[in-house]
Amino acid sequence: MPRLQKRVLSSDGRASEVFRTAAQIILEKGYDATSVADIATALGITKAGLYHYIHGKTQLLYDIMQYGMDELDREVVQPAREIRDAEERLRFMVAAHARIVTRGQGAVTILVEEGRALTPAQNRNVTRRKRAFLDFLRATLDELKKEGKLRNLNTTVAAFNIIAMVCWPSRWYQTDGALTEEQVAEQIVDMALNGLIRRGLRAV
Amino acid sequence: MPRLQKRVLSSDGRASEVFRTAAQIILEKGYDATSVADIATALGITKAGLYHYIHGKTQLLYDIMQYGMDELDREVVQPAREIRDAEERLRFMVAAHARIVTRGQGAVTILVEEGRALTPAQNRNVTRRKRAFLDFLRATLDELKKEGKLRNLNTTVAAFNIIAMVCWPSRWYQTDGALTEEQVAEQIVDMALNGLIRRGLRAV
Repeated sequence: MPRLQKRVLSSDGRASEVFRTAAQIILEKGYDATSVADIATALGITKAGLYHYIHGKTQLLYDIMQYGMDELDREVVQPAREIRDAEERLRFMVAAHARIVTRGQGAVTILVEEGRALTPAQNRNVTRRKRAFLDFLRATLDELKKEGKLRNLNTTVAAFNIIAMVCWPSRWYQTDGALTEEQVAEQIVDMALNGLIRRGLRAV
Repeated sequence: MPRLQKRVLSSDGRASEVFRTAAQIILEKGYDATSVADIATALGITKAGLYHYIHGKTQLLYDIMQYGMDELDREVVQPAREIRDAEERLRFMVAAHARIVTRGQGAVTILVEEGRALTPAQNRNVTRRKRAFLDFLRATLDELKKEGKLRNLNTTVAAFNIIAMVCWPSRWYQTDGALTEEQVAEQIVDMALNGLIRRGLRAV
């Protein structure tokens, strides 16, 4: 099947599909009961094809978490670094992060929290990456504080509050529900920004 | 040891200690590696004494979740039902819930999310109780909406946003850190209420 093979090898979106599908199967069946063959079957590719993306069962959870953190870097942190205004950057980060959480029924986001299933070295690496994200978000809040735009909030607690609101839909959002992913993202941006920014200093 | 025995049988606080300690050990060692004897040893009581509180290993996770939901009912929902003003009720609920989350390093709150480890019947029961809590919180938000006090927010998303912010400290809060549990609770109340309530209609 040359068409499928080409798609497997060339498209970035294919890696996303691989890791999201693997995450969904692990959440449904449990890690121990999931085989590489199950994932290959669900994707309609061979096990050999699947090994273009993953290192095998033992490292699969870690690979999925790395994929999730890579996605966060690529779609949230890197574009955010180009935004000079702190409030605009914050708004972008909340919206962009919220949009990736609900993809693939949130399975990747849920698994990123399963640090206990990793080896100590893997867990340290994932923790380090999460910490870097927290620090970047907090630095933006510290900038807003300096500008006098932040309410009287501890920026660590505020950064965790944002991450909490943004990540939680991985547990409840249903693609066939009343709200689109975009609507959920907008609601989170609205509530987070109004909870953070000092009133009277920004247009609504 | 009559003194210990009396304490075991009479004090409400003892049940809390049992379930929080059990939850912490399970989070540290993993459920499979945790024995009833480990928990008894950590509490300094006999296995027989421990069986006053738990039904044994197979139902232990479920018992811990029930304890967590009972605590939520007793300390948040029941007192909140006595508060007529919706904004005051909301403020109380966020603060009271935030205060119980960080107890015992948040282990009970983390385990309440591990629904996959339950039998289907147990999971249905825990899900039903969580749903009842969500409905009660959302009803308060619906009241605020009717009163014109709520920002233009979907009350389901807003209710989940509150639960997210309140529950997340179970994952990061450290009792030996820079902030007291009370300070974290206050920060969450401040950010949540300002994110929810229409500006200009309430005193800060």
